[in-house]
Amino acid sequence: MPPLPDQSAPLDVARLMEPKGFSSVAKNVGIKDATLDFTVVFSEVPSAAAAVFTRNTFCGHPVTVGREHIRDGQLQAVVVNSKNANVATGPAGLEATREICRLVAGALAIRSADVFPCSTGVIGRPLPLDRIRAGIEGIRGELRPGELGRFATAILTTDTRPKLRRVPIGDAVLVGCCKGSGMIEPDMATMLAFFFTDARIEARALDHALRTAVDRSFNMVSVDSDTSTSDTAVILANGLAGDVPVDAFTAALTAMAEELAQEVARDGEGATKLLEVSVSGAPDVSVARRVAKQVVNSPLVKSAIWGGDPNWGRVAMAIGKAFDLPLNPDRVVIRFGGVAVYAGRDLGPEPLEALRTYLQGDTVAIGVDLALGQAHARVWGCDLSPEYVRLNGEYTT
Amino acid sequence: MPPLPDQSAPLDVARLMEPKGFSSVAKNVGIKDATLDFTVVFSEVPSAAAAVFTRNTFCGHPVTVGREHIRDGQLQAVVVNSKNANVATGPAGLEATREICRLVAGALAIRSADVFPCSTGVIGRPLPLDRIRAGIEGIRGELRPGELGRFATAILTTDTRPKLRRVPIGDAVLVGCCKGSGMIEPDMATMLAFFFTDARIEARALDHALRTAVDRSFNMVSVDSDTSTSDTAVILANGLAGDVPVDAFTAALTAMAEELAQEVARDGEGATKLLEVSVSGAPDVSVARRVAKQVVNSPLVKSAIWGGDPNWGRVAMAIGKAFDLPLNPDRVVIRFGGVAVYAGRDLGPEPLEALRTYLQGDTVAIGVDLALGQAHARVWGCDLSPEYVRLNGEYTT
Repeated sequence: MPPLPDQSAPLDVARLMEPKGFSSVAKNVGIKDATLDFTVVFSEVPSAAAAVFTRNTFCGHPVTVGREHIRDGQLQAVVVNSKNANVATGPAGLEATREICRLVAGALAIRSADVFPCSTGVIGRPLPLDRIRAGIEGIRGELRPGELGRFATAILTTDTRPKLRRVPIGDAVLVGCCKGSGMIEPDMATMLAFFFTDARIEARALDHALRTAVDRSFNMVSVDSDTSTSDTAVILANGLAGDVPVDAFTAALTAMAEELAQEVARDGEGATKLLEVSVSGAPDVSVARRVAKQVVNSPLVKSAIWGGDPNWGRVAMAIGKAFDLPLNPDRVVIRFGGVAVYAGRDLGPEPLEALRTYLQGDTVAIGVDLALGQAHARVWGCDLSPEYVRLNGEYTT
Repeated sequence: MPPLPDQSAPLDVARLMEPKGFSSVAKNVGIKDATLDFTVVFSEVPSAAAAVFTRNTFCGHPVTVGREHIRDGQLQAVVVNSKNANVATGPAGLEATREICRLVAGALAIRSADVFPCSTGVIGRPLPLDRIRAGIEGIRGELRPGELGRFATAILTTDTRPKLRRVPIGDAVLVGCCKGSGMIEPDMATMLAFFFTDARIEARALDHALRTAVDRSFNMVSVDSDTSTSDTAVILANGLAGDVPVDAFTAALTAMAEELAQEVARDGEGATKLLEVSVSGAPDVSVARRVAKQVVNSPLVKSAIWGGDPNWGRVAMAIGKAFDLPLNPDRVVIRFGGVAVYAGRDLGPEPLEALRTYLQGDTVAIGVDLALGQAHARVWGCDLSPEYVRLNGEYTT
């Protein structure tokens, strides 16, 4: 009988729960300060791959290059720097991203088109390419298996903690991690999210699984209604653990992405509470999503929840911002934590007192029934605190 | 030669500059605290009138009744209470608004359908109708000319100051005032804005003039992207000063509305700076407006301006949120106070230093050229401060 893994050695445990054939390196190259700011993940064999990107038209240069490199559905490495987004930096910025891919490819002896680049951080500052160039030297010898936890740390910006999940699927393992704390209302994609698996899934099915997962998770989260220029989600499946049922894989990927999305909302800049808004009774899903996002993005709703103020009338206001709906306010129901506070009319002081107590918790669930149809949707966000403003009043200073 | 008006008697001066035939009363009826919370303006003759309203579908009962009463283009009185919006209060709330109109009409011996009701304040609390009923008794004897300044004060909620303008047009006078500080992104209408004039203009022309003015002023201001349930702008023209040129009147009304709209932005909840965003080079005006609002509403842009952080990259991000535009970031120009900080690429550290100094002022003008066409638009907003969150975290508590 083989010895049990030593519980006091977290790296070994992590290695057991990481997909075969992936190794990584995370280091500081001095982009802004002394924290981890540069990281590479490498698969020993070419992987099937899929990615989705921000719809922001002022997108980062890594998004432009990433779109090119994902086209053939194959990747072998991911390179990420934090602390600088390489956005709005002109032609020199685009060339910097291409050079980083070439240098990483050279160091790992793989195709440049199989290197997927991401950058996250401040917009509009030249990338310190010389420091990154120096950092790339010697990465081949620095790659280690079982260290995706360091990868998850190196990609952070204003996040207060890494966001990492591992799950077995048959003989394979799926690892996912993401970063994102402000400038978060992804659309068709996410902040930065990475998934690595040794399951064997061909690129087309992988793309479908990723889009399904992202649509129900990262596209349903909003910290501040600002859609980043760099949002990217990418998945690599190197096949070393063999086939797995695609349905089970998609379900696991979606569940993991939903957990990571909630982590992003809960770790929103300055956030003290997770906000979950469920809208039912909508004429179709797109309306349900739109109304839910109106509520989760309302600065007045978010401020009231930060302050524990039972001001549910602001939810009514936020619902009404869908100007084109044939809404009948006399049929709408608004609930907090399952308790109705409005059902066609105000329900008096009693639910207000219950609401005041409920708002002391660290999760606030708002339910809205529009009484217009059968469709529903759920989104996640967070409260708006003075700390959010303070953080973002001095981000570059 | 008649004596000059006594400059030390502001009420008399105000009376000289108020339209003939209007009188008003403003008092406290105890809706929430001891400040002015109830006010009526009366015209001694029926007035041509026009109004525009919020597009919020969860609209207040006074909006519903106001829409009915404006239909024939005639009004003779306006009744406003602050501290309670009478929204989401069910059928009893609707009946309360109708009764207020009936009682005011009875006291003034005019038609109920010529009374225009407005309420502003918290959503979802029953209106204390008994107190308002008591307040209406005896208003006939309390009406005074020349006291629209008190009217402008009685309509306030979280505003820090009244917003009132007077301008002569030929022999006539136009007075305008408004309130609004939070839940401010009017659409097709405004917070509450009132215009009174003794010019003679028929209702149809008045409606056109009001829509023109509102479209260029209140519809171009956003404090926090939240569209109120009660937004209303109304104008009464009682004709006692005779005809005026409609073009001159529309121009004066528009200029006054623009000034009042800027006052609203500058007095935004917790605001320390007025923010003006001009977008040029758009393919059409609606795109120019949309992009300008994306910038003026971005919590990240607003927080940076509050903190004096020269983080212009967030303006780039906010521009890019118009997902459907064929934007070429290499041709976009971003200016602060006329100085370019981005022109297809970052322009280095020099403009950053100038920007840091510029952001110390109390007005921040952002210019964006999209290089896509000839259309332009200008909107006003304000910075986002920790004080906004604090104010709105304890509004009802």
